[in-house]
Amino acid sequence: MKFTEYAKTYIPNINNAIGTILDKKLENINNTFLKTYYEEIKTYLLAGGKRIRPLLCIAAYNAFNDEIDDKIITPSVGVEFLHNASLVHDDIIDKDNFRRGNPAFHYRFQLYHNNYSLKKMSQSDFGNSIAIIGGDSIFFLGLEPFLFNDFDRNRNLEAINYYEQAFGDIANGVLIETDMVNRKNLQMKDYIEMVSLKTGALLEKSILIGANYAGIDKEYYRILSTLGINLGIIFQIIDDILGTFGDEKVTGKPTDGDIREGKRTCLLIEAINSLDVKKRDYLVNLISKSKITDKNVEEVRDLFMEADVINSCKKLATKYYQEAEDALEKLKPVINNSEIEFFENLLKFVLERKF
Amino acid sequence: MKFTEYAKTYIPNINNAIGTILDKKLENINNTFLKTYYEEIKTYLLAGGKRIRPLLCIAAYNAFNDEIDDKIITPSVGVEFLHNASLVHDDIIDKDNFRRGNPAFHYRFQLYHNNYSLKKMSQSDFGNSIAIIGGDSIFFLGLEPFLFNDFDRNRNLEAINYYEQAFGDIANGVLIETDMVNRKNLQMKDYIEMVSLKTGALLEKSILIGANYAGIDKEYYRILSTLGINLGIIFQIIDDILGTFGDEKVTGKPTDGDIREGKRTCLLIEAINSLDVKKRDYLVNLISKSKITDKNVEEVRDLFMEADVINSCKKLATKYYQEAEDALEKLKPVINNSEIEFFENLLKFVLERKF
Repeated sequence: MKFTEYAKTYIPNINNAIGTILDKKLENINNTFLKTYYEEIKTYLLAGGKRIRPLLCIAAYNAFNDEIDDKIITPSVGVEFLHNASLVHDDIIDKDNFRRGNPAFHYRFQLYHNNYSLKKMSQSDFGNSIAIIGGDSIFFLGLEPFLFNDFDRNRNLEAINYYEQAFGDIANGVLIETDMVNRKNLQMKDYIEMVSLKTGALLEKSILIGANYAGIDKEYYRILSTLGINLGIIFQIIDDILGTFGDEKVTGKPTDGDIREGKRTCLLIEAINSLDVKKRDYLVNLISKSKITDKNVEEVRDLFMEADVINSCKKLATKYYQEAEDALEKLKPVINNSEIEFFENLLKFVLERKF
Repeated sequence: MKFTEYAKTYIPNINNAIGTILDKKLENINNTFLKTYYEEIKTYLLAGGKRIRPLLCIAAYNAFNDEIDDKIITPSVGVEFLHNASLVHDDIIDKDNFRRGNPAFHYRFQLYHNNYSLKKMSQSDFGNSIAIIGGDSIFFLGLEPFLFNDFDRNRNLEAINYYEQAFGDIANGVLIETDMVNRKNLQMKDYIEMVSLKTGALLEKSILIGANYAGIDKEYYRILSTLGINLGIIFQIIDDILGTFGDEKVTGKPTDGDIREGKRTCLLIEAINSLDVKKRDYLVNLISKSKITDKNVEEVRDLFMEADVINSCKKLATKYYQEAEDALEKLKPVINNSEIEFFENLLKFVLERKF
């Protein structure tokens, strides 16, 4: 089944499972502010998103099952909670007031602050405080799908173990990235490690959680890991290319953001590694400036073009795509055709996407 | 066994169990920044604290066991991770740079920021960002004691369920408090609900997790809950009294902090409920001011004295103490003497403490 068909089939059930967890929470709450708080979490979680992580979990489960059942839908949403909790905290850290065109979680509560007559906290402190706790709540709510479902306890404990590992990996990735922004020395292997953790690990764990519930042989785990992690690496490389050279009208994101933030993209690392010393130093100086002018942004972009970074980064993405294809090839004898199509289709989509 | 003896017996093992979890993490890490990060988490977790929560968990387990074993020590530290993770996030929210005389987690990384030559983020943003992730990490690390120990899977899943409930309760308590600071209407029942959640719930869940591992009859859970929650309520009422009328040299805390923050203490609520309308309005105006002068603080303190709040709050604490004693009485036929002494002693200590 194609990725889009898979999404169409399962997203309503995924959203339903997410909503049920919040409704259960809301049932027992009388306090007005708490009601608003959990309603906002529900709205935030149901505001959209491609649900790639639960879909990967479901596909990995279905891949190894001869008969399809719906038991996997409930535990599949755990990883979506984890993803959203990270987004809530990331948006505070990055001071991004909007996410997918909607107000970020902290910004929702900055707006809510207008309801108070007394104002002991500033609007911004209030919003950030509620969102720090909000992200925490979503992390914890993400445990529920593993605690209350139709699988046995062994599988659920194992899934919680993956859930914890996934967070640990994401945190390590974000921490390495935060550290990198303040450093001059950059190697492509550091970038790959960083994105494998920051983006790849949760895709990987989504797949492994599905496989765990299917009860498959441990020998396939390493292959499934490659599939998930490489999917994340490819996603992030293409994201970097689109973040600077994409079409704003299609991506919905400004193409000067990454350069202004001094983000350690694969474009930057490729450029640093291929330009001559003089130009390299000039580039590093440009992206290290605390105030970058429009002209500076153009200079960086010109140096990127001169270093031919789009092609070398696409080549890099293709290398990881090929590795993922090889992994999938090894799985072909043991998994269902419908899911082979799903994974092949998703890999292609992530590699070739323009948005 | 007296509380202090219990602490002396178990704290070295508790610290050892905490250290082991971090050492296991550190073993697999090569990145310099990540090494520093997990070392700082370890230092933070081992910097002190009375370990009341793990001790409650251990005591509840021992209370129902004829033969003492050490299996409970590992899972008992989960609640200490939860407690510390909350402190890390609280300190960001409250902008407190110190905790127990040591730098707060976010402040440690503000200082670390000096190591960088490039500074894309401000010192304060850098510290807060690392500490948002730091609190998250500690929440997740707190799952490990329940995943890797010598108990069976049923008990571990149940413990994780309590772990999640404990966080949910703490969050609800902190949210209600944050909302209350911006509201004028205050009832003592709201205060009791707030502190039951913010402080009582984790003490309660620490006890319930211990009882769960002991495999006791569900009929005792309600009584154990009362014991834990009331311990929290008493702790918080006394904390409020000491926060404004304690001896700074003994408590180590300034006695104007709560008044300046406009904190909704039981003192304030008692005063509002017993002063005449004119004085009540004057008091509410005072504590609602965004800049409170030294003279204002003294005026608030005088109104508190006039309303005789110390006595009425002590009376309130004694009511919850009596309720906890009654709960303990009901347990006496089924639990060990050594732990009856522990709980009685702890209740007395919390009620009578001067620091």
